Amino acid sequence: VTATIPDHPTEQVADVSPAALADFLVGDAELDSTEARRRTREAVLDGGFGYVYGLPRDEYRDWVFGWLKQIGEHGMGSLGFPSEYGGEDDPAGAIASFETLAFGDLSLLVKTGVQFGLTGGAIHRLGTQRHHEEFLPKLARVELAGCFAMTELGHGSDVRSLETTATYDPATDEIVVDTPSQSARKDYIGNAGRHGNIAVVFAQLIVDDEKHGVHAVVVPIRDADGQVADGVTVIDDGEKMGLNGVDNGQLSFDSVRVPRNNLLDRFGTIGEDGHYSSSIDKASSRFFTMLGALVQGRVSVACGALSVAKSALTIAVRYGERRRQFESTEGKETLLMDYLTHQRRLLPGIARAYALHSALRRLRNRYVGSLDAEPGSEEVRTVEGLAAGLKAYSTWNTTETVQTCRESCGGEGYLAVNRLPALKSDSDVFTTFEGDNTVLMQLLVKGLLSDYKEQFEDLDLLDIVRYGLGRASDTLLESVPFVNRGMDRDEETLRDRDTYLKSFRWREDHVTGNLARRFKKRIDDGADPLDALIDCQDHVVRLGQVHIERLVLEQFAEDVDSCGDEDLRAVLDLLWQLYAVERTWVDRGWFLEHGHFSAATSKALGALLNTLCQQLRPHALTLVDAFEIPDALLAAPIATDAER
Amino acid sequence: VTATIPDHPTEQVADVSPAALADFLVGDAELDSTEARRRTREAVLDGGFGYVYGLPRDEYRDWVFGWLKQIGEHGMGSLGFPSEYGGEDDPAGAIASFETLAFGDLSLLVKTGVQFGLTGGAIHRLGTQRHHEEFLPKLARVELAGCFAMTELGHGSDVRSLETTATYDPATDEIVVDTPSQSARKDYIGNAGRHGNIAVVFAQLIVDDEKHGVHAVVVPIRDADGQVADGVTVIDDGEKMGLNGVDNGQLSFDSVRVPRNNLLDRFGTIGEDGHYSSSIDKASSRFFTMLGALVQGRVSVACGALSVAKSALTIAVRYGERRRQFESTEGKETLLMDYLTHQRRLLPGIARAYALHSALRRLRNRYVGSLDAEPGSEEVRTVEGLAAGLKAYSTWNTTETVQTCRESCGGEGYLAVNRLPALKSDSDVFTTFEGDNTVLMQLLVKGLLSDYKEQFEDLDLLDIVRYGLGRASDTLLESVPFVNRGMDRDEETLRDRDTYLKSFRWREDHVTGNLARRFKKRIDDGADPLDALIDCQDHVVRLGQVHIERLVLEQFAEDVDSCGDEDLRAVLDLLWQLYAVERTWVDRGWFLEHGHFSAATSKALGALLNTLCQQLRPHALTLVDAFEIPDALLAAPIATDAER
Repeated sequence: VTATIPDHPTEQVADVSPAALADFLVGDAELDSTEARRRTREAVLDGGFGYVYGLPRDEYRDWVFGWLKQIGEHGMGSLGFPSEYGGEDDPAGAIASFETLAFGDLSLLVKTGVQFGLTGGAIHRLGTQRHHEEFLPKLARVELAGCFAMTELGHGSDVRSLETTATYDPATDEIVVDTPSQSARKDYIGNAGRHGNIAVVFAQLIVDDEKHGVHAVVVPIRDADGQVADGVTVIDDGEKMGLNGVDNGQLSFDSVRVPRNNLLDRFGTIGEDGHYSSSIDKASSRFFTMLGALVQGRVSVACGALSVAKSALTIAVRYGERRRQFESTEGKETLLMDYLTHQRRLLPGIARAYALHSALRRLRNRYVGSLDAEPGSEEVRTVEGLAAGLKAYSTWNTTETVQTCRESCGGEGYLAVNRLPALKSDSDVFTTFEGDNTVLMQLLVKGLLSDYKEQFEDLDLLDIVRYGLGRASDTLLESVPFVNRGMDRDEETLRDRDTYLKSFRWREDHVTGNLARRFKKRIDDGADPLDALIDCQDHVVRLGQVHIERLVLEQFAEDVDSCGDEDLRAVLDLLWQLYAVERTWVDRGWFLEHGHFSAATSKALGALLNTLCQQLRPHALTLVDAFEIPDALLAAPIATDAER
Repeated sequence: VTATIPDHPTEQVADVSPAALADFLVGDAELDSTEARRRTREAVLDGGFGYVYGLPRDEYRDWVFGWLKQIGEHGMGSLGFPSEYGGEDDPAGAIASFETLAFGDLSLLVKTGVQFGLTGGAIHRLGTQRHHEEFLPKLARVELAGCFAMTELGHGSDVRSLETTATYDPATDEIVVDTPSQSARKDYIGNAGRHGNIAVVFAQLIVDDEKHGVHAVVVPIRDADGQVADGVTVIDDGEKMGLNGVDNGQLSFDSVRVPRNNLLDRFGTIGEDGHYSSSIDKASSRFFTMLGALVQGRVSVACGALSVAKSALTIAVRYGERRRQFESTEGKETLLMDYLTHQRRLLPGIARAYALHSALRRLRNRYVGSLDAEPGSEEVRTVEGLAAGLKAYSTWNTTETVQTCRESCGGEGYLAVNRLPALKSDSDVFTTFEGDNTVLMQLLVKGLLSDYKEQFEDLDLLDIVRYGLGRASDTLLESVPFVNRGMDRDEETLRDRDTYLKSFRWREDHVTGNLARRFKKRIDDGADPLDALIDCQDHVVRLGQVHIERLVLEQFAEDVDSCGDEDLRAVLDLLWQLYAVERTWVDRGWFLEHGHFSAATSKALGALLNTLCQQLRPHALTLVDAFEIPDALLAAPIATDAER
């Protein structure tokens, strides 16, 4: 079978430059916010916001806080704020800027995210004009440092069950914020440990003894001199695996009173008469609408995580291109990059980075477009699902890629001076924050399968079944080119766009049908819907993954096909093939289980995977240099010819 | 197909206690060195050698050095040394003690390994009586701190190509040690940065202008006051991803002179007449014999890595048994451990830990037995291969397990106070040090496939082919119970010992045959053997993995089957099944490709995997508590009810 694949391809497929590939990655300069990227890169380089390590914790935190203020002065953090309140009305630019910052110190990235993205974003998207006026300009200039106090010790993923209360007291026209239990302490809150002045606190709003669900209230927690406010208790979270330039902490509240106007009341308000009102009747719809307004954080983390993977790949490939080990036939020792095992470790990671680049560019643009749509509308909910799924997919990919790159650099990769330890330790929590990945995949799938529009109040799980079964049975009847049940495929088919585009879609539909059947069986056996769902949880997460992977594959294909330069397209096409083949090969157990291709084809895919790595190997350096990460930001002597 | 597997098993299979399981893990108390473990545990607990974090680097290093001295005073580090030189002639106890230390601070573990295992071990195993007399007692009491200076910046895996030279000067009867280039600097050397007094330096020995290959020479590098010796340059490696209590550094030598007697000359000596002689004629045989004498380091790392995985699993399972999230049907929120996705994350890791425990116990005993065998003998080389393969398998498993445990604990898992960050960062380099795992797997396979005894000088690669082809064709004709090509298997078969024992062996033989064929094809096409081997590298590593996995499966089965307690055996049998099924399921792509079972069987395995997790779920806490890691060493508030 392997005979259909040429052995030992060594010549370059085409002559391409990093600059040409970089242009491809940019695509449309305006849509890509090239100007915001350039400004951010300059700010980072001029300000020296690169990698630092080995500082004592408080010093590191203050250092990063100083950088944050400079970012504020440059106007980079508030790009997305309304122009009348210190911003530039440019959410696309804000995300592009975040992506660029992610090439530098990741504590600064997260501090920026907390200040401008989460705190500023919550006030922007959940507040009304008076909040914008009062807080956004000060947050933009970092005259106020802000906390986003959502997660509690006992409730992270399950935001709806937060315990903190915000009770309206008509006697004083104030809102009283309380932490009723240990597990209600706000935890892992960035900016809480040392610098934060205000916190956007998510709490159960109680007005007239009636609960109205989770709302956000602005609570001052520390004055300009760093004095913690009365009734507020701060406990520093202390040292973490990484991101030690960010001062995470616990916040708890003992009858802390704030003016009624501090309620961020875009979706629910307390009138001057002391009564609650909302434009959204159902509490659960209101809750989902509020959360939906905060989706920019997940979009940003998905994009930032990709930047981290690009940094790690650049360092590892450059090292692999200079480090030699064991003698070769020419008397010179062999470059690490010339070993097949090394190629198999690094090149699929590069392909995944390019593929994700295409998908995340679209997510960013679609998110920005959705800001004009009605809150809670179908488009907004679709984007929310995509952001959840791509955040999970991208951050898991980064964890895996950085780990592989660390191991590929051996002992050098373990030294802090070579940056990979920080890339690993700092980004490790990306799979957890802004939503645990496993939970996010389930969020995506619930969105995919249920018709929120009609039953926003309670997800009717049986509808998942009906929808899923219907959809799957429709598509399973379609003919799919890969299905061959025993026949070998020729190399042309195995390299063909259509083979994988249809296969990935077929897989998604099949997984949908399987999930639906399994779920229905549990229900038919008398299981409670929630228990049944827990029982199918592995299938739910799986569906999220294959859905996202299908989108990534399609969107990368679109970009490759629209590339006008023939040489460039030849290389990109190989990269696309590598993405498609590697993802298929990794999941070949499933494809074989479902009779989608023969054992012979599966083996041929394994051989093709090696061939593709060998074909792309001459371009490895070009492919990572196209990410255009400045040496000063890579900050790894093994990648930049610097002395360590 | 899934209908053959019972849904929703909830009841406990049997009533077992952590103590009964712990007894099973001990097995034979004497062979298990229970006494050495107890002494070590006491020393660790009494000395407070637990987890520390957040100390400035130099303070942390000195703290760990203080601990090392206490370990020395307790006699724990020199257990394996000859009794006449401060030890107890107990290498099994030394490894058991290392395993126990691995529950505590990992910087101390590595510092201990460098001092007693590597430096002491090299002097013990490569030196002769005068070296033992002079150095071992002082190393045992830590009056001298030692470095093991093998790895160079340019040569880690390829020790035979080290550049450092040790030239005998007959005029002064001294050996002159030199670092001829930048890439020849000794690097990542533990104890070099701050505390080391002597270094065992591996260098190309030159006598009478003739090169005799790599030998080890003891070189003083720093006096008792910390003054670095003339001609020696030390550059601190600075901060690392983890293990920051160990002072790694670079060492280079500019005509550093030491007495002739400082050559560790068990396998090659310079006589008083100034001529070189050795009992082993061939330079390459001598080299391999010397390296083979140092195998205890790999055995120890394999065992220590498992302890780290056990710690992480204990923390994650205990947290999963107390943390609730999202409402369940009973009105109470659901325990994390009751989620199927959580069970799928953690229970296979527990099964792997138990399986590896069996295999590593045998490796330890077999290694100790091999110390009585002739250096360079077949038994010694077999143990060397096993140690290489199990070191790679165990440390990769630890990296994966700790990562999964970190993610399973969400935000709590990212806080240093909960220990998982240190377990991850400290153990991450285990896949690299004591030999890069990818290289070690190749070492194992070369040993498996070639007949070293007859052609020790140069590995005849064509013999690999002949041997491999012959072996594979023999066994492929055997009937294997799993092979069914289309038929579904009943649950009994899918849970049967024999099904997997034969399948894993069949897989190994098949991979051997494939490798041989692929290699032969390259050779037949005129490829240079070295290029051909690089081209088959992925198959070589793969063969190493499936070989080790087969051994682990068999050895765990033996232990389970020999368990006399029926209840206990019932639980252990499930654990064995989980190991067998998960490993098969993860690799089902390969099994399906090779027609070893049908698609229906493959799906049934996936369902069985869930069922096994659900069946073992009630025992999760018992299974980790059986590791008997003291709370003080776990040192994670989320696992020990302590306040953070």
